[in-house]
Amino acid sequence: MQRYIITNESIALPNFIITGDDYYHIKTVMRMRLNDKVYLCNQERTWIAEITAITNDAILLKEVEEIIENQELPYEVCIAEGAVRKEKIEEVIDYLSELGASRYISVQMERSIVKSDASKMDKKAIRYQKIAKEATEQSHRKKVMKIDINVSWKELLKEKDNYDLCLFASVQSDENDSLKKLLKTRKYKNILFVVGPEAGISEKETKDLLENGFLPITLGPRVLRTQVAPTYIMAALSYEWEGKE
Amino acid sequence: MQRYIITNESIALPNFIITGDDYYHIKTVMRMRLNDKVYLCNQERTWIAEITAITNDAILLKEVEEIIENQELPYEVCIAEGAVRKEKIEEVIDYLSELGASRYISVQMERSIVKSDASKMDKKAIRYQKIAKEATEQSHRKKVMKIDINVSWKELLKEKDNYDLCLFASVQSDENDSLKKLLKTRKYKNILFVVGPEAGISEKETKDLLENGFLPITLGPRVLRTQVAPTYIMAALSYEWEGKE
Repeated sequence: MQRYIITNESIALPNFIITGDDYYHIKTVMRMRLNDKVYLCNQERTWIAEITAITNDAILLKEVEEIIENQELPYEVCIAEGAVRKEKIEEVIDYLSELGASRYISVQMERSIVKSDASKMDKKAIRYQKIAKEATEQSHRKKVMKIDINVSWKELLKEKDNYDLCLFASVQSDENDSLKKLLKTRKYKNILFVVGPEAGISEKETKDLLENGFLPITLGPRVLRTQVAPTYIMAALSYEWEGKE
Repeated sequence: MQRYIITNESIALPNFIITGDDYYHIKTVMRMRLNDKVYLCNQERTWIAEITAITNDAILLKEVEEIIENQELPYEVCIAEGAVRKEKIEEVIDYLSELGASRYISVQMERSIVKSDASKMDKKAIRYQKIAKEATEQSHRKKVMKIDINVSWKELLKEKDNYDLCLFASVQSDENDSLKKLLKTRKYKNILFVVGPEAGISEKETKDLLENGFLPITLGPRVLRTQVAPTYIMAALSYEWEGKE
């Protein structure tokens, strides 16, 4: 059954009204008819609803039942990544949304090959948010990942005040803790994890991170590309937090 | 420093001779010169070597030193996936190679949208193996993942004899074990993990798997697409096996 994330303006329990992109998707892409059912959810609740009318610009639906489900990780995770090419950002946003991340920050770092172009940022932000929404629906999550692009290095460092545990991906070294050890020895309610761009985190940036209390973490002995590392992190956290023993 | 996986024919210690694609890469893409250094490795060993001559069809190198490194997971992991589109297979092969998988099987399953076309298989196999080799080099592994494509469902089921622990990805259910629980309660030296195509594993296939001793495993409460599930599995295994506590 198809799933749509709706805004609170669409909800007038026991009725729902859908317009815009989702209207087009239900009517034209899925070719649904009267009495067809879909899942509808906002950030907190999920309903099964039935189509009661299809007009020229809206779908009306009625609640069949509310269902209880929880697809969210127990803790909030923000991945901050050095700015990379648009196609790679899109791939990462897709994977992270599906794997339960709550926020993604694209940061201008020293070794980012892609430089910011303010004129294109609005258009990009809309596109990225659309990818996140679709991946969220596909994965049956309810909360769409928040996305911040074109964030400066200075702004990123300030984010440390918003997170209990601030980490960065680092090459293997005997001095670095593994993610496994850290999760078992620290207390936290949310995590900020910094990953470098293709060419890695610079020496100056590493110094900044250490001085601001970010901890270097090893993600295994293999060298992971910048789009694989965020996926690795989210999968490892899900394994640790959601795997019943 | 650039890294190349070489065949044993290239090794005549303390000398090495490189021809073919890697010759082209060293000479034309990287524009290396005499005395430049590279990493060379076969399945077991890694050397730093220095270029001693560049001819019209070969690069000659001499050993500087052998280095000891281990980027392989402690256990062999084979991911078998329902046949999906070429681009998705390529993405999965790239990610899995980088994350330490030892083998990938593309299986004809009931809900595979892509049907096999024997005439194109040889060309595809060569391309997939090239992607695996490049991802292996990039990640600093030495062993290139083995790839089997166009494998029938019957052949896949027989693979159970080659693996200690045979698993398949299944939707969340209270009856299914988590991967975490399973890894802590079972003994194994290698793992075979079956993942469905986009539309999932069919009921008949689920029955076959259960009858052949494959165990259903939950990969968290979110619905993962077929190209994300293999990455999740490999990251979780690396986290569990390679994270020092």
